[in-house]
Parts: sequence; C-alpha cells; structure tokens
Amino acid sequence: MRMYDIIRKKRDKEELTDEEIAFFIKGYTDGDIPDYQASALCMAIVLNGMSDRETAVLTDCMARSGDMLDLSRYGDKTVDKHSTGGVGDKTSLIVGPIAAALGATVAKMSGRALGHTGGTLDKLEAIPGYVTGLTDEEFFSVVDRAGMAIIGQTGNLTPADKKLYALRDVTATVDSIPLIVSSIMSKKLAAGSKNIVLDVKCGSGAFMKTLEDAEKLARSMVEIGRRCGRNMTALITDMDKPLGKAVGNALEVKEAIEVLRGNEKGDLYEVCVALASEMIALVKGIPAKDAEKQVIGAIEDGSAYKKMIEWVKTQGGDPRYIEDPSLFPAPKYAKRVCSPRDGYIGRMDAEKVGTTEVLLGAGRITKTDEIDHTAGLHIEKKTGDYVKKGDLLCTLYTGNEARFAEAEKRYLSGIVFSETAPAPVPLVYKIVR
Amino acid sequence: MRMYDIIRKKRDKEELTDEEIAFFIKGYTDGDIPDYQASALCMAIVLNGMSDRETAVLTDCMARSGDMLDLSRYGDKTVDKHSTGGVGDKTSLIVGPIAAALGATVAKMSGRALGHTGGTLDKLEAIPGYVTGLTDEEFFSVVDRAGMAIIGQTGNLTPADKKLYALRDVTATVDSIPLIVSSIMSKKLAAGSKNIVLDVKCGSGAFMKTLEDAEKLARSMVEIGRRCGRNMTALITDMDKPLGKAVGNALEVKEAIEVLRGNEKGDLYEVCVALASEMIALVKGIPAKDAEKQVIGAIEDGSAYKKMIEWVKTQGGDPRYIEDPSLFPAPKYAKRVCSPRDGYIGRMDAEKVGTTEVLLGAGRITKTDEIDHTAGLHIEKKTGDYVKKGDLLCTLYTGNEARFAEAEKRYLSGIVFSETAPAPVPLVYKIVR
Repeated sequence: MRMYDIIRKKRDKEELTDEEIAFFIKGYTDGDIPDYQASALCMAIVLNGMSDRETAVLTDCMARSGDMLDLSRYGDKTVDKHSTGGVGDKTSLIVGPIAAALGATVAKMSGRALGHTGGTLDKLEAIPGYVTGLTDEEFFSVVDRAGMAIIGQTGNLTPADKKLYALRDVTATVDSIPLIVSSIMSKKLAAGSKNIVLDVKCGSGAFMKTLEDAEKLARSMVEIGRRCGRNMTALITDMDKPLGKAVGNALEVKEAIEVLRGNEKGDLYEVCVALASEMIALVKGIPAKDAEKQVIGAIEDGSAYKKMIEWVKTQGGDPRYIEDPSLFPAPKYAKRVCSPRDGYIGRMDAEKVGTTEVLLGAGRITKTDEIDHTAGLHIEKKTGDYVKKGDLLCTLYTGNEARFAEAEKRYLSGIVFSETAPAPVPLVYKIVR
Repeated sequence: MRMYDIIRKKRDKEELTDEEIAFFIKGYTDGDIPDYQASALCMAIVLNGMSDRETAVLTDCMARSGDMLDLSRYGDKTVDKHSTGGVGDKTSLIVGPIAAALGATVAKMSGRALGHTGGTLDKLEAIPGYVTGLTDEEFFSVVDRAGMAIIGQTGNLTPADKKLYALRDVTATVDSIPLIVSSIMSKKLAAGSKNIVLDVKCGSGAFMKTLEDAEKLARSMVEIGRRCGRNMTALITDMDKPLGKAVGNALEVKEAIEVLRGNEKGDLYEVCVALASEMIALVKGIPAKDAEKQVIGAIEDGSAYKKMIEWVKTQGGDPRYIEDPSLFPAPKYAKRVCSPRDGYIGRMDAEKVGTTEVLLGAGRITKTDEIDHTAGLHIEKKTGDYVKKGDLLCTLYTGNEARFAEAEKRYLSGIVFSETAPAPVPLVYKIVR
C-alpha cells in the first residue's frame, strides 16, 4: 500500500477502504508518512469530503492510535458531555453532579481555556485544593467513591489527533466536517464513556456560526459515535450571546453553585436541565421528558448540590468554598461598564465577550499563558434587555488595573443597540437523537 | 503575508493576487515555506484550479526563481520547440537544422530519457564527440558559428520547478493543467527563446490520453506563453503509435539523417514539416503555408542536411557519422519479432513500445541508469498495416541478449490485431495559434 495512491483516490473523489485509512493513521502517527503527504490528503478531504463509513473508520483508527480508557467496570452507566466550546459555558460543573446524583457515572476528562473559549479544568482549579491531574488509579478511586470525577487528560490519548490537528492548524485544513468529527469523536471514544451527549454551540461565539452548519456537524457526530458503538444525542444550543451571567473561572464556579442550589433559573439553568435530561435519558433508557422530571427533582431536593460537595471534596478540593462561595478570593479591581445610550441590546458578540475575558487575564492566548482565576466579568444586561443611558451593562474584574481600558472597549464593541426589541431566539435550537 | 491565508483562499476558490503567488514561490524556493504547506496548496490548486492570470504569474515567478538565459543578442529570431514527450520522437534533431538553415536561431536546451519517453540529449550522445555539456560562453559560441546548438540545462534554471515538481510527484498533485503548464512554460521562459512551438502529444504513448485533454493543455500553454511575452503556437500530434520507425538512440539519429536527406517521407517527415513550418511562420511572421514551402525546400535542396553536419561538427561531434551513418557501431544482438497471426494491426500501445525500448537497455527507469546507445527497435508494421502470420513486425536490438525475452513479450502485448482496417487518424490533430 502506498500513501501516494491513497491521496490520489481521495483527490479523484473515490472512497478509501478501511485498510487505507488505517494505513494512513498508523503511518502518520508512527512518523513513516511525512507531513507533506498528510496535508495533501487533508486538503483533498476538505474539498472532496468523506462518507459516513470513511469518517467512522477514521475516527475509530484515531481513537485507537494511543491509550484507550477502559470504563467497562462501570457497565453502561458512564456518560460524557462534550461542548464544542463557548463563552460562559460552565455546564460541565452543573450537569456532572446532577447526572451523578441520579445514578450515572461521570468519569470525565476536560480541557483548558484557549482563545476566546474557557476551559473546565481552569474553572475547577479556582477551587483551592482541587486536583485536576490524577493517575488512572486515583481517577478510578474518586469515581468509585463519589460517582464522578473531572480531570485533565491522562496517558497518551489519541496521538494521531494531536499530530494531525497541529498540521491542519497550519495548512488551512481545519474546516471540514469529517476532520472535525474525527478529531472530537476520537477523543470521546478514547475517553471511554458509553453514553455521550454533545452540546453543539451555534452563533457568534461558536465555531459553527449558522444553524445549518451546526446541525450538519451534530448529525455527523451522532452518526459516527453510533457507528462506533456509543449511545449518542446532540443538542444544538445558542452561543450568539454568552451562557449565564458569569464569565471567568472563580466567577463561573460560583454561578454553577447557585444553579445547583436552585437559586438561579435563567438561560444557564435551562440549558443545563436540557443537557442533563438527555444524559439521564441515555443512561437509563427512558424518555427525555421523564428524565427531565428527575433532573429538576435532583436540583430541587438538593441532591445534585450535595453531590457537587462530595465530588469536589473527594477530588481534593476544599468543600467550604462550595458551601460558602464568599470565601473565594475577591478580585483586586472592579470596573462598572455602563450603557452609552438608551435602547434595546439588539445583539451581543459572544466572541468579543470571550476576548474581553482573555484581556482581563482570565484566559489564554497561547498554551503557556498564566491564568488569573479571580478575573472575569459579570453580565447584567443581555440581548433583548432595554437599557437607559448610564445603566450598568456589566462589571469587569481583574488583578491588574491596566487591563481595564482595552477590555471595556472590547466589551462595548460587541454590543449592538437597536430601537426595537430583537426577536427572541431559542436556547436549544434542536435535539439530534 | 501568511502562507496559511494563501492556502485558505485557494481552498475557498478565491483568486490569488500576484503578490501572494510571488510570496509562495519565493518562500518555497528559499525554504521558508515548508513542504506540508506547499503540498496543501498544490492539492487545492489541483481541485479548484487557477485562472489564466494566476497561471501566468505562477509561471513567470517560477521562471525567475533562478537563472534566466539571455538570448537577446539574437534579436527576435530565436525559436524553441518543446514536445510533451513521446516514443520515437526525434523531431528536435530534424526541425532544429531546418529552422537554422532558414535563418532562425535555435539555441536549445533539451532533457534526458526518463520512463517510457526518450530524451534528445541521449540521442545526441550516440554521435561520437558530441558535447551536451557546455558553458554559456561555449553555447553562445556554437550558436554564433552554426546558427544552432542543443545542450543540456546550464546553470540554476527554475529551482522552484525542480523543488515543486519533486513534491507534486509524491503527493498526487501532478495532474493539474495550471501546474503542468507552469512547470513546462517556466523552463521554456527561462531558456530564453522569443518564439516557441509546442508539440502536445496525444494518445496511448502520451501524458494526455484524449484530444480534449491535449487541447486544454495546448490552449493554456499558448495563452500563458503569450501573456509572458512569447510568440506561441501549439500542435496537437498523434502519439497513439510511435513516431517514425526507429526507437532507440543511435537508431533514431540515423532515421533523422534520412529525413533530412529527403529519403524518408512517412509520418515522421510530415510531423517535422508541420512543426518546422510553424517555427518559421513565427520567426518570419509569415503564413504557415508559405513557411511550409521554405521548409520543404530546405530539405529538397540539402541545406537542412548540411546544417545538421555543420551544427554537429561545431558542437564537437564527428561529422563523418552524419555523412555515413553506417559508421555507427552495430548493436551486438538482433531479434526479429514476427506476427503470431493474420490480420490488421488495429492498435499499437505506444507506451508499451516505449517500455520495450527501456527493457532493451535504451532508456532509464531511474535517473542514474546507464544507457546502451545501440539498443532499440526498428518497427516494420504500424497501425493500419495488414500482416500475415510470420511477417516481420519489428526488429529488436540490444547489447545484452538476456533482455530479448521480456522485451518481445512486452512489444507484442501492445499490439491489438483486428479483422478490419482501423479508421485512419490524422498525424496533426489541431494547430492552436
């Protein structure tokens, strides 16, 4: 078998065989196939596509290119939730405890913030003592005791994806449904959960800007995950504005606690209920409507909140911070951003809110940047709200006062005022089962 | 400017600017742009194409990536002829002396045999004493005295093409009209002639298998050459069977001599008259019909033949071999290949005739293979001829008897017999002016 012929076939719109895809992934991971052949193939895939069968095989080969986490000891109760990335998205901190409180096993790996989107690991590290780096044994021990754990990636997971993604990133071959799906889903497969709920974000703050694109991606991921033996559901949710009010690590943990305590019933609550309901529906094999009742019950009766305390404590975190969020260190500086005019907020550019967060020190531009866990912003007015000139739009927080000027400018540049109220958009556009 | 954005634009079917193409060629030639970005761009070009403007700029940038031969001292009389490669194609040895005899300046660089197609340099080196490697000064001196010279490439011509072709060859990105055109035409531009006649071969022994593909390539090369300031004509000629009767280096030189002596009036003669007529038409700015009369006259009156002797002698070759071709060393072994049946020769696979030549030792599989100048074959019967069982089809020649078995098998495998006479095909399909 020759890589040349594999490239030629895809260039000529022919389908690759299972063996050809396996040959490519193994050869590229091992370093036998050079970057210049892999990038030519990726460009041919971007332009000529891949069938569902090809994408499923690619995903499976990538998943098997390194270690696979074996969660079989937990039977079919394991459930993972994956978001394609958004601003103010702290849903993992909420739906994890809900699902675990209802008997599911949440043995989850999460990522860090990069660019304008936040990362669950950084949020969790705002909790004093919480350990994100565990060995497999420690990880299983936490899951055994608390029913859930969220850690950073362990071992050598999907090396093929790491190498291929780095190459795609510099050869303009990222934008391709089969390549995006195989990258995301190979990591999910390697992470081992039987049930997977995908939160495909759609809008100005998301990778997928249109509902059409988001639905294409969601349908493909569900199809590929299913072909690879997992139970799948995808929700397409709004990321045209940030989710919830808090953006920034400690601020988001505090907001998550409020949702679990039943004190916060806005958009964040609604999206979390929708996600958790689909998770429970998959794990228990029950209709989502019935699952929803259990989910709301777990918030109302405090069992989800108690599960969060138990989980954080078991994973080394100081539970007093969950019980009394006022203990979180206060940000050194705060700045009120007020409305420059009267009018409706017609649109918020969620990506600009995300970069405001980065400018305040709460995120990363490059992988090695240090994070200020106290930094971030608290949003008072969102799309659809009517404001008077001088009304508080949001409060910015940071440990470095010099960051305010540019952050405020960036935040305001993302707000579009209008004379009339904008049409409301749904929080959950679609559920792909 | 970033290579990433250039790849992305071409991926998205946008036109590249002159500056972007120049940035790519300079950066790639200098080693600043890595292979994996260049191959991704090449694949995007293969699949999304390039406009004539883009192709012309690419060609010009590649031509300027190294030395450019300055032939301005010869005014507008310089003429080059380029064949896309065929089997038995010794036209350069014939049309060069004809054009020079009629006052054109033929200062030409040629290539070597590779794969199933022969190379003019290897043919010329069958003439004892002939020097293919000259300095620029020696080259100009031969042209000044004899009106023509044919040498191997001097200096550092089109390094961008060398590097890019090697990359395309291993990434399945050869098959692209803009990339083929820029590769061929950049070398022609760098070689300096004002007038260029292209012989685009079409058929089983050529890179372009169909008339449609050949015409596309011909039209594009004429357009691009013209945009780059050259006078251009392209002929699309038949390569469904070999050209002439001789295939192999010394054998082909002898056949060329016979054409120039006026002793050989078959397909080779006709194609050479057509090519030389277009060369003279461009150089003198006269209609091809008028040029044809001069071309036939130069053969009839012996002036083209005398020019060949003068040129070969001036370039170091022993003119006695031209005057008495029987002096060429005889091949050590000969083998007659006879017809296994009665019938018409319905089709000859020219590529198989070419590989027969290679199997006999007259060609190269890899660039470093040694060549047997005496080896080759002499074809007695061609497409359209009727043969009886046992009639002589061709004679094989080689210095190594062991080569006969496979060569004969290969030759016969390319002959398709038929009960009825095949429809005749034109020698010159089309002239693109």
